[in-house]
Amino acid sequence: MTATAVAYPDGKSVREACRRGEFSSPTAGLALGYIQANLVVLPKEFAFDFLLFCLRNPKPCPILEVTEAGEWETQNLAKGSDIRTDLPCYRVWENGILIDEPRKITHYWRNDLVSFLIGCSFSFENALIESNIPVRHIEQGVNVPMYKTHIPCQKAGVFGGPLVVSMRPLKPSQIVKAIEICSHFDKAHGTPIHFGAPETIGISDINKPDFGDAVTIHEGELPVFWACGVTPQAALMQAKIPFAITHKPGHMFVGDLRDKDLQK
Amino acid sequence: MTATAVAYPDGKSVREACRRGEFSSPTAGLALGYIQANLVVLPKEFAFDFLLFCLRNPKPCPILEVTEAGEWETQNLAKGSDIRTDLPCYRVWENGILIDEPRKITHYWRNDLVSFLIGCSFSFENALIESNIPVRHIEQGVNVPMYKTHIPCQKAGVFGGPLVVSMRPLKPSQIVKAIEICSHFDKAHGTPIHFGAPETIGISDINKPDFGDAVTIHEGELPVFWACGVTPQAALMQAKIPFAITHKPGHMFVGDLRDKDLQK
Repeated sequence: MTATAVAYPDGKSVREACRRGEFSSPTAGLALGYIQANLVVLPKEFAFDFLLFCLRNPKPCPILEVTEAGEWETQNLAKGSDIRTDLPCYRVWENGILIDEPRKITHYWRNDLVSFLIGCSFSFENALIESNIPVRHIEQGVNVPMYKTHIPCQKAGVFGGPLVVSMRPLKPSQIVKAIEICSHFDKAHGTPIHFGAPETIGISDINKPDFGDAVTIHEGELPVFWACGVTPQAALMQAKIPFAITHKPGHMFVGDLRDKDLQK
Repeated sequence: MTATAVAYPDGKSVREACRRGEFSSPTAGLALGYIQANLVVLPKEFAFDFLLFCLRNPKPCPILEVTEAGEWETQNLAKGSDIRTDLPCYRVWENGILIDEPRKITHYWRNDLVSFLIGCSFSFENALIESNIPVRHIEQGVNVPMYKTHIPCQKAGVFGGPLVVSMRPLKPSQIVKAIEICSHFDKAHGTPIHFGAPETIGISDINKPDFGDAVTIHEGELPVFWACGVTPQAALMQAKIPFAITHKPGHMFVGDLRDKDLQK
């Protein structure tokens, strides 16, 4: 376990360090065993279309919690949390264009903003590690590699766009075991959507992820692809709605619920 | 099997008979094995609050499908269907007050209307019958009895209100088996929420249901209560939104998908 992982053993310690402005890095490998979540914040005007987009695309967008307009505290994932300050880094979008990557969004807050907390594959990584399945980006201390694919999401209202995936390299026997484990984690993207040839799903260069960092693929390993909670960011870029806020990829909300609470 | 059940062996035959104006009765026991669904239609302005209400109350409101604003054809439950004509009977609501019970809603249709198809306990009744568990209202050829309880739903935006339940009388050994069967039908209200003493959940007279018809409870049987898709109608009455349409309780949308498609 790295020194950073030791310093942040649970969700609350990560959120408080973010709130104090002391932590602004990716959260993979931190607070292992605690639920991590993607964040999408948008005006209520677009909330129905977006919620429907999530329901129609449950693999990239498993809903963990949705707040009422204007509320910044999550009720289920972590009581006492503040969505405006408790993530390491945010992205602010205007008309589909990234205009800011702030460490707080308090000054951007509005009373018509609805927050969506969406399951994250980091939530099953602890279960993989406990079964001796390597998680390469944690081993290498970098952000998980993420790629846009050519697989279209099902549209809902103004939202559509390509499926974004995360990638972990594994040997075939490990892939079998990982699929078995992830089949119990529907709320954290569940089973992989593909493994092997990246070009089959529209990824031209596995060494150049669209988000996050490249990782080493060893001899005998295949890249394994899971639906990713960054998919909504691609949808926001495409929909060009006037205003939205998301987490910065890999920089997640960490809750008080445990990964096992997501297991079915 | 009754003559009516023989005449309507599948979802399409029920929908077409409704569309031709030839059928306007409750749908329990018809097209056994085909998915039945509750209907809620409301202006897009209220669609986010209502969808969130469903997500926060998945037992009474399991979402099967949500249409885009203005669309009247379901994409998953039944291609070629017409939500405006294919149910036996509808209810039209203004400011929370029932103003009409028409057999078609074509003349009420507006381009901003969003339709919610919500799972129905009729979808597990076929599985009960196949396991020799009696379904009293089908035996007696009446509508299922439904009751308002004093159990509050979780609120979402303008929507809240009491949980509505349906009731089937069973012997203890049958209750055990029914719970086992229904545990596989999350999208059709799943397991019961209560059995035995009706007053415990706020039902003062089991012989006077708030919706549907009373049924006989034999010696040795207990009333068993399941969350019911009429719950949104209680929420609509309480929210008093300007306009909404629902099915008339017991008069469901019958799809082309099979009950087994809902089983997990």
